[in-house]
Amino acid sequence: MSKGPTTRFKVEVLDGDRTSRREDVVVTEEPLELRLEWPGRPPEPLVVTMRTPGSDFELAAGFCLGEGFATRPDAIKTVAYCTDVKLTREQQFNTVTVTFDGPPDRESPQRYGVTSAACGVCGQQSLDELAERDYAPVDPVQTTVDVVRRLPEQLREGQPMFARTGGLHAAGLFTADGRKVVVKEDVGRHNAVDKVVGWTLLNQHSRKGLVLVVSGRAGYEIIQKAVAAGVGMIVAVGAPSSLAVELARRFDITVAGFTRGDRCVVYSCPERIIRA
Amino acid sequence: MSKGPTTRFKVEVLDGDRTSRREDVVVTEEPLELRLEWPGRPPEPLVVTMRTPGSDFELAAGFCLGEGFATRPDAIKTVAYCTDVKLTREQQFNTVTVTFDGPPDRESPQRYGVTSAACGVCGQQSLDELAERDYAPVDPVQTTVDVVRRLPEQLREGQPMFARTGGLHAAGLFTADGRKVVVKEDVGRHNAVDKVVGWTLLNQHSRKGLVLVVSGRAGYEIIQKAVAAGVGMIVAVGAPSSLAVELARRFDITVAGFTRGDRCVVYSCPERIIRA
Repeated sequence: MSKGPTTRFKVEVLDGDRTSRREDVVVTEEPLELRLEWPGRPPEPLVVTMRTPGSDFELAAGFCLGEGFATRPDAIKTVAYCTDVKLTREQQFNTVTVTFDGPPDRESPQRYGVTSAACGVCGQQSLDELAERDYAPVDPVQTTVDVVRRLPEQLREGQPMFARTGGLHAAGLFTADGRKVVVKEDVGRHNAVDKVVGWTLLNQHSRKGLVLVVSGRAGYEIIQKAVAAGVGMIVAVGAPSSLAVELARRFDITVAGFTRGDRCVVYSCPERIIRA
Repeated sequence: MSKGPTTRFKVEVLDGDRTSRREDVVVTEEPLELRLEWPGRPPEPLVVTMRTPGSDFELAAGFCLGEGFATRPDAIKTVAYCTDVKLTREQQFNTVTVTFDGPPDRESPQRYGVTSAACGVCGQQSLDELAERDYAPVDPVQTTVDVVRRLPEQLREGQPMFARTGGLHAAGLFTADGRKVVVKEDVGRHNAVDKVVGWTLLNQHSRKGLVLVVSGRAGYEIIQKAVAAGVGMIVAVGAPSSLAVELARRFDITVAGFTRGDRCVVYSCPERIIRA
């Protein structure tokens, strides 16, 4: 059977001089195997990613967009759990097949191997490959400083699992005036981003005018996914990395980091955040 | 030239109604290409990982141990930056070659592609492969609850970069009575673990009796690296994932999570933490 987003374990809590035994709720981390299929070719394994079960189809679609296999909105025909009879029932719910209407936009997908819950760029042969891929310009979305400051709290409100496990990343897409479009959680930061981007694909929801909000740090792989999704603004609760800032500046993405309370630090394209 | 562990950027700080421009220190994230070489074979690229420059040789050695290429302490003959004349100087400092005294312990290394700063298990064909690899039992290290509680603060004291950038993970190895052996920082959690484990390899320091301390969460890939290194106890400031707990129980590794102040939650092998 498919596991839920959280798993219970018997634990010992050591608190001061006391030891108590109780059940603890832990975020579920499980491998998801992604297979690609298109007319004239049987499904072939592409990658195994560690993820928190839930919104698996969105994760699969978002991964395909981020990695350049599905750049047209209608490239993906179906997304389904595997019905391979050789798999156990648990394996079936840990295997998702994405079927394209023709050969995917990126040629010759290679096997990526297993990526961890924290990995977002496996399979890129080089950074240059990313720069060489043919991206549409990102959406030059504008918002106000007041909206930016409220976004982390709004993201948190859409994070039911974090409160229970303390071990989850969240990503959300919000409109430029601060309304929530979609929020997803995952043990892997990049998976959460794939899930919200994949949600827009599967629901044919435009990403124009949207801001990506992430609960943690913004590394290279988060900016890379924003570039591929055409999203022009990222609000992060944590710090960016140097490569994230460099990539954001190269692709004209606004990155706000350390967005806490009344304060944030803007690393790129600050002019898109309108001051009072 | 090789970049340092931190990079400066001009940023805008939006604080209340005020906007100020200043220089900000950001943790450096740069790709490191790892190449393997042994007698009779030219160096071949194995993986590109996003990492924070510094302790690159330790990172390379630790990665090789974690992935099963170097299980004997003396398997690695040399670790060196690349002198390939076709590379720019910056590329040379982002390319490390590990030379073995013979074919590595794990047969037929494949190319892993690029892994992100957050990725720790790329290239594993399956979880079962990990279970099937022939690990020595981990060291059944014991310590006291008082030592466990002090470890996160001691780790923090060995983290000079975090204070400046707010964007770094740290990992450390400590003796069972709480003395620091080595602490390393990296933008990638798993890289920090590779760096401390690699440090023991390059310095021929026994890992017996040591406890691994990590500044953040403990996912699957952290436990996997502890298994490969034979380290029997992990103290994490953050939460573990379900797969981490399952793997720790399978390989008899003590995992303490949420180790903050006077409190911690023990998910596996609690008997090795001695109470007052």
